[in-house]
This record gives sequence, structure tokens and C-alpha cells, in this order.
Amino acid sequence: MSTTQTHPKAYADLLQHHRDASLLSSTASLLGWDQEVMMPPNGLAHRSNQLAQLAQLIHERSTDPRIADWLSACEADESLTADPRSDAAVNLREWRRDYDRATKLPAELVVELSQTTSRAKAEWAEARKADDYARFAPWLDQIIGLSKRQAECYGWPEEGEPWDALADGYEAGMTAAYVAGVFTPLREKLVVLVDRLMGSSTPPSNAFNELKLPIAQQEAFVRRVSAAVGFDYRSGRLDTSSHPFCSGTHHADIRLTTRFAEDNVNDALGSTLHETGHGLYEQGLPAEHLGTPRGSSVGLSIHESQSRLWENQVGRSRAFWTWCHPILVEHFGDAVAGLSADAVYAAANRVSPSLIRVEADEATYNLHIMIRFELERALLKGDLTAADLPSAWNEKYRDYLGVDVPSDAQGCLQDIHWSMGALGYFPTYTLGNLYSAQFFEAAAAELGNLPAMFAQGEFAPLLDWLRKNIHAPGNTYDSADLCEKVTGHPLTADPLLRHLEEKLLPIYGL
Amino acid sequence: MSTTQTHPKAYADLLQHHRDASLLSSTASLLGWDQEVMMPPNGLAHRSNQLAQLAQLIHERSTDPRIADWLSACEADESLTADPRSDAAVNLREWRRDYDRATKLPAELVVELSQTTSRAKAEWAEARKADDYARFAPWLDQIIGLSKRQAECYGWPEEGEPWDALADGYEAGMTAAYVAGVFTPLREKLVVLVDRLMGSSTPPSNAFNELKLPIAQQEAFVRRVSAAVGFDYRSGRLDTSSHPFCSGTHHADIRLTTRFAEDNVNDALGSTLHETGHGLYEQGLPAEHLGTPRGSSVGLSIHESQSRLWENQVGRSRAFWTWCHPILVEHFGDAVAGLSADAVYAAANRVSPSLIRVEADEATYNLHIMIRFELERALLKGDLTAADLPSAWNEKYRDYLGVDVPSDAQGCLQDIHWSMGALGYFPTYTLGNLYSAQFFEAAAAELGNLPAMFAQGEFAPLLDWLRKNIHAPGNTYDSADLCEKVTGHPLTADPLLRHLEEKLLPIYGL
Repeated sequence: MSTTQTHPKAYADLLQHHRDASLLSSTASLLGWDQEVMMPPNGLAHRSNQLAQLAQLIHERSTDPRIADWLSACEADESLTADPRSDAAVNLREWRRDYDRATKLPAELVVELSQTTSRAKAEWAEARKADDYARFAPWLDQIIGLSKRQAECYGWPEEGEPWDALADGYEAGMTAAYVAGVFTPLREKLVVLVDRLMGSSTPPSNAFNELKLPIAQQEAFVRRVSAAVGFDYRSGRLDTSSHPFCSGTHHADIRLTTRFAEDNVNDALGSTLHETGHGLYEQGLPAEHLGTPRGSSVGLSIHESQSRLWENQVGRSRAFWTWCHPILVEHFGDAVAGLSADAVYAAANRVSPSLIRVEADEATYNLHIMIRFELERALLKGDLTAADLPSAWNEKYRDYLGVDVPSDAQGCLQDIHWSMGALGYFPTYTLGNLYSAQFFEAAAAELGNLPAMFAQGEFAPLLDWLRKNIHAPGNTYDSADLCEKVTGHPLTADPLLRHLEEKLLPIYGL
Repeated sequence: MSTTQTHPKAYADLLQHHRDASLLSSTASLLGWDQEVMMPPNGLAHRSNQLAQLAQLIHERSTDPRIADWLSACEADESLTADPRSDAAVNLREWRRDYDRATKLPAELVVELSQTTSRAKAEWAEARKADDYARFAPWLDQIIGLSKRQAECYGWPEEGEPWDALADGYEAGMTAAYVAGVFTPLREKLVVLVDRLMGSSTPPSNAFNELKLPIAQQEAFVRRVSAAVGFDYRSGRLDTSSHPFCSGTHHADIRLTTRFAEDNVNDALGSTLHETGHGLYEQGLPAEHLGTPRGSSVGLSIHESQSRLWENQVGRSRAFWTWCHPILVEHFGDAVAGLSADAVYAAANRVSPSLIRVEADEATYNLHIMIRFELERALLKGDLTAADLPSAWNEKYRDYLGVDVPSDAQGCLQDIHWSMGALGYFPTYTLGNLYSAQFFEAAAAELGNLPAMFAQGEFAPLLDWLRKNIHAPGNTYDSADLCEKVTGHPLTADPLLRHLEEKLLPIYGL
């Protein structure tokens, strides 16, 4: 790298040190992928040992005290920090952030968190299976307590709250006040929209979603679509796993997974396009900055914006199905012969308030997230106890989604996140949805008639726009700044609401 | 481990240190498997960096100077070394051997070897493609020179020769004199046997080997057979790769590969059974000694004995096909309806002297190996120069196999081994064949009517015998000692010759 040679030695040392750690992390990532996708069941114990060893080697590197000295030297060097958007300044900002977070937790708290969440995950799985919330409640209590201690170690701004300190680990700068400011108007309008849709006397037919289609054919179909929108299979793979995800080692080796059920090609396609969106982001990160923040994704919500954009803004659009319907017919033949492009498009956009987040449609999904955000915020503030969680949960499901929760297994025990100590994580899903709509509006304003392009199978103009505006900058901007830079406005709920209303009301004959 | 607690601290340190290094090696192994079987093509450069980083971490551990102190302390401790077959004594013997070999080469020779073979491999590939031996000859010259220097660093016993020092890296204690002593009578008798077979007026029909069978059906068939002989798919996988191999991370996660061609189910089955044999050995190693020599395989020739035993002694036997023929019919139906069990058995045992080692049959394979052994020994002694290799190669192919070599690409350029600096490796293949026959005779003598068991699909008695006699001892004995202990005799060529003559002469109507 010629750039490193002109930098002071401390910066070159930091660069080398972090690239080395990042290379090790990419090895751990491959082992994690293999564990989910390839590993035979009896390999688990040894795999845990391999991952623990790598985690230890990575931890040693990320808490190496030399980092503090190198950082201090660099931070005092105007030539590196004068322009806060320079590669060096971006890297220094993020290395500082990572180092401070990695060294702020006392070792005994790290151990206690790891031991408690490891047991709590197992207790949660048993409690969910037995629909026995009382079994999980004391573990959630412990996790809340540990999370508060963790938040205190990290600290938060005076006007903030403990939730902010935890959320910052998933999304730099995300605060409860910011999230609530965006979520509250969205929630109010979504509840009204879903109510209107459910009152329609002409909801779309569900026929497409109930077809039985051979899984081998579904697989060929979703591979073709993901390649057509731009996923580069020379730099990635698609496999199956019970929960779809996007992983890999670096931009040129990205591993997607999806899932198949005979009677749910819509889910297979949606999952594939979702992970493809994550994968396109990773494949588009700048190769020359591999192993540094400058070459990395921003955070979870911008990542989710990319997956949601391809899944929903593209893959559930009328124009997409104009292009895709003949391909569907080509792959499934007579089985789909009776369904028009319009019928498939409408079926792919059915809305149905339900109990389970991971099965929710585009309109109701965010209501599931808001419930979790409001509850975890209250738990951390001390406004809600673990014992009172089920009744609070069920009340919100009635209020926001109009559904009665018949059991805690289908209610507050459905998600693994809290048992893992991941408080502050859920809102990144909804922020991602909001960013996706706002980015898509900006792209459309700049690129012109996107639907006419999609109808011809032309996805490259949109992907190029995303590459240039979102992928190439890596982690130069935080989410909020990136949004303002790319769209000209701070994040608001309006684009997502416009998108949903303009699409869904006509489908429901309203 | 309760055993480690009673040991002196130096032994516990060695154990911990080597288990840690072995865990890292198992991670490198998984990355290597993934590279061959799963990785998308653009992932190569990054994967090389990941593997280089792990190699560096492993090298640091295997040359850690504390090992020398720990070893000295332990070797002076009678309680550890009094019984040379105790777990501790076995581990100390092998750790000593590994440490001495790892530290005997000067760093600059290691670098020169690595750089030269890296370029030589690429030059070899080009030379083979262009059938241009002159291009490769100077590289082979360099490799011979470096190999001699390498051998001098390792050293060899007074009555030995440079080849021995290199071969010892693949097979502890293997010497050229030992190999020649076993090979020479084998070669003389094999040449006569192959001559007789080729003179037969009633060779077996090749019809089975020319059938076109769908690859998906072939895959289901070979999976069923490998599971039936004992491969545990909860502790392993089978995938495809261009060159079949057996890899994995430890006994409970063994990764086999095989290959398929529409018109060669015989190759797919043979490759699968071969790798299954390697996999059964690995799955049978003692779990409680994971990450230590006591829990590891002996060396390459004993490993090859296990693969060859299942591929040839079992998988090419008449009794195996009595059991397997109905399964073949079940999987392929009408396509194989015209072929009797006898016809398939005979076709699976066709002998045909040929140019290419990796395509050779059971009878001629060892002649290919002997040619390579004699030539590499002469190259290292200085009795043959790289420039004279092609004519020496072609002469031996005429003498031993009766075939004329039409081009160096199909002659002395066919194997990658020498370009990688792997001199002293080839004979382990033939030693493996010899051990397989001698082990199989011993098992049959102890277990009774093995063919009657195989005809019923009962492979467990044989596997249990191998588990107890070969797998469970791990690396307690070297190859030669293990052979004497298990069979009561030193290794000789007689069992393999008996096996081949008793099987092949009747098939050829002789």
C-alpha cells in the first residue's frame, strides 16, 4: 500500500495490527458459516473450542495496550486528523471507538456476561419449548442487571439513558430518544394503515403463496434472480440453513443462505433477495481498504437498508414482477400457468397481522420491532420488571397489531435476542426499513424511471448508484450522516409510509 | 484430564502447548477443505493470506524454545519414559521428533524452499500443459539441490542416504534400503503377473465400466455404501472435488470428497471407498488423546493401508459384490439389469497397463510407484540428472509396464509431487498397499470367514478389528512395529501378491 508509507509509523503499525486482527476474524467467520451450513452434528464441541481459541487471539489483539499509544500519537497528528472524512481519520475514529469499548468492560464482567448468557440461551430454548415463561424470567432479570452494569461501564451522554450505551455497540450514535422520535409517528400511521387494509372487502388472493413447487426448481429460480440483480457468484455462494443469513470472509467471498419449503416460494425468494442485498453491500465495499473501518460496512441499520431495499423496494414491486413473471413461468411451467403477473405481485404483498416477527409482512413487521424497543427500554430504565413482561407484551400486541397472544411461546419468548444479552439490537431492523425507503426515493429521483428499468431486468443502474453512494464510502459516515449526505434529509418515516400506502392501498382495492 | 494432573508440570505444559497448536492446525485444515470444496474462485488471494497467518501462528508454536526445556525435563524423568509404549513416552518421542525437524532447517533454507517450490509448481503446470519438459528441467534441478541441502540438515544414519532424511518426514524411519528390500521382489513378480494377465484369451468384459449412469443416482449409491461399511455421517461429510481426498478437523468431523463422471461409477465407488477408509481411520482415533501424537495416525503408509483395504480388499472382492449387486440394481434399475454380480465384480478388477498413475488398476499401480521411487533415489544420489529424467522414465515404463510413453506430459511431467519438493513421498502409496494386504490376512485369520460376512453386508467385525488393532493405538507404534505387532511378521510383499494372484488369475480364466 503506497498510502501507508507516507503515514507516520504509529499509523502504519495500527493498520498492520488491525488488518492482522481482521484477517483472524475472517477465519472465525468462515468457521461460523461452516458450523451453520456444513458441519456434521458431532463436530460441535471441537468447533466451539476452535472459535474460543480464535476469539482469544482476536481479543488479545483488540485490547493490546500498544493500541492506546499508537492512537494517542496519531490523534495528536494534524496531518492525519485535519479532514475528519479522510481515510486515516475514519480509521482512527473507529479504532478508537472499538478500543475504548473493548477495554471499558472489566474482565470479570465479560466472563459473567458470557457465562450467564450461555446458560440463559439454553434456559430460553427450554422455556420456549415448554411455554414456561416463569423458567426464563429469573434469567432475564439477571441479564437486565448485567446489561445495566455493562451500560454503566460504557457510559452515556447526560441527556441519554442506559439503552443508548448498549445500542451504540450495534449502531454508532443510536439513542433511544432518536429512535423514539422516528418510531412514534411511524407507529401511529402504520396502525391506521394496517387497520384500513384489514377492512378491505377485496384483499388479494393468496393462491400463489399456497402453491406446492419442487425445491430443486425453487433453488434454480432464486439463484437466477439473485444473479440477475447483481450478486457475483464468482465472489460468493448460496446455500441453505434454517435461518437465512449473510456471512463470508471479505468482499470477494460472501456466503449467503436461504431456506426452502415446498409451499412457500415467496419466502424463499424474499429470503434470497434479502440476503442478496446484504451480500451486494459486502461485495461492493472498497477492496483497497480491506481489513479497516474505511473498507467496512457502517452498522447494522445501513446493512439492513440494503437487504430490505432489494427484498421489498425492488422484489415486491410491480415492475419487478413484470420482468420476473416470465422467468417464474419458465422455471415452474404449468404449476404457475394460471397466475398472472398481477396476481403474483399482489400475493407477494399480502398483509396479515400476526404473532411472529420473523414471519411478518412488510407493513406489520415494524410494529413487532417497536413493541420490543419500547419494552427493552422500559426494562433497562426499571419501569418494567421481567415478571411483568408477558402482560405488557400481550397488551401491546393487542393495541398495535390487534392480535391476542395465546401463549408466551408465541409471545415474549419467541426471540432469542434478549437471552443472548442483545438489548438495543431490534430497532436496527426498523431503521433499516426506513433507510431503505429513503435511499430508494433518492435513487429514483436521480436515476429516473426505475420501474421501467426493472421491467426490462435492468438492475445495474440502481446497483451502481448504491455502490457509489452507500457501498464505496465504507464506514466513512455514521448512519445518520450518510442518510443526510445521500438523501439531503435526516431520516424520517415519510418515505416508508409513502411507499407502503402507494403500493398496498391499490392492491387492497382502496 | 486426570492423567495430566499426575504428571510433572513440564509434561502438562507440553500437552497444553501442543493441544493449542493442534487446534490451530485443525482450523487451517478446515480452511484448506473449504478452499477445495466450497470457496468461490475469487476468494483465493484472501484465503492464501488466512492460511499464511495460521501457518505463521502454528510455526511460532512448533518452534517455541520453551519446548526444548520442557522436553529435556520430561526426557530425564523415568516416570514418564520407563515404558516406551506409555501415552507420555509416545507423545514425548513424537514431540521430540517434530521439534527437532522443525528447528533443524535454517530459516533462509525454509524461505528458499517455499519460494522455489511455489514458482516450480506454476512452471510445472505450464510445462505439462505445453508438453515442454525443457521448461521444467532447471526447476527440478534446483529442487534436487535444495532437497539435498534439506536432507543434510536433517541428517541420516551412516548406512543410509539422503533420500532417507526426506522420507522420514512422511513416514518415521522409512529408508531407501528398507523400501528397496520390499519393492524389488514385488516388482519382479508383478511384472510376471501382469504379463500373464495380458496374455489371457478371456479377459473380463468392460461393459460395466462403460455404462452411463446419472450422477445424482451415483451419489446416492456411493453414500449408501460408505455408510453401510461404517462411515459415520453424524461425524463427517462427503462432497465432490476434482481430486478426491480426506480431510477434516478431528475424529468427529471428517470431510471426504469423491468425484463423479457419468460413464465411470466404478471410479466414483472406488474413490469413495478409498476416502472412506481414510475417514474410518480418523473417526476411530482415540478421542481422549485428541491433539496429541497418542491420538494421531501413524504415518502416510498406515493411512494408505486403511484406504486401500476398504477400496480393494473389501470393495473389489467377490463377496462385496454379492452384497452390493442388489443395491446397485435398486439404485440404477434397468440400466444395470443385464449385468450379473460376477460381471460387475470382474469389470471392477480389470487390469490394463497404462501411462497414468492416478488411473492405474490394483495390479499395475505399484509399478508406477516403483518407477518414481527408483528415479527420485537416483536423482538425490546424483546417479541421474534432471536432464536425463525423461529417457530414464520412458525406459522404465517400457521395462515394467510394457507401454511406450508418447509424450513427457503423459510421462515424467504427470505428477505434481516433485515440483512441490515432495521427494520421498511416493513409496508410502505402495507400502500402504502392502500393509493393507498383510493386515487383511491377519484379520481374516482371526475373524474367520470374512467373505461370508461381507456377502451379508456385515462389515462391523472387520471394522471393529481395525479399530482395536490399528486405530485405537494411535501413533503408539511406528509402521514397521505396528505391522509386526498386529500380523506377527515384518512387512513382506507376499500377502499382496497372494491377494492379487488368487483374485485376478481366475477372473482372467487362468
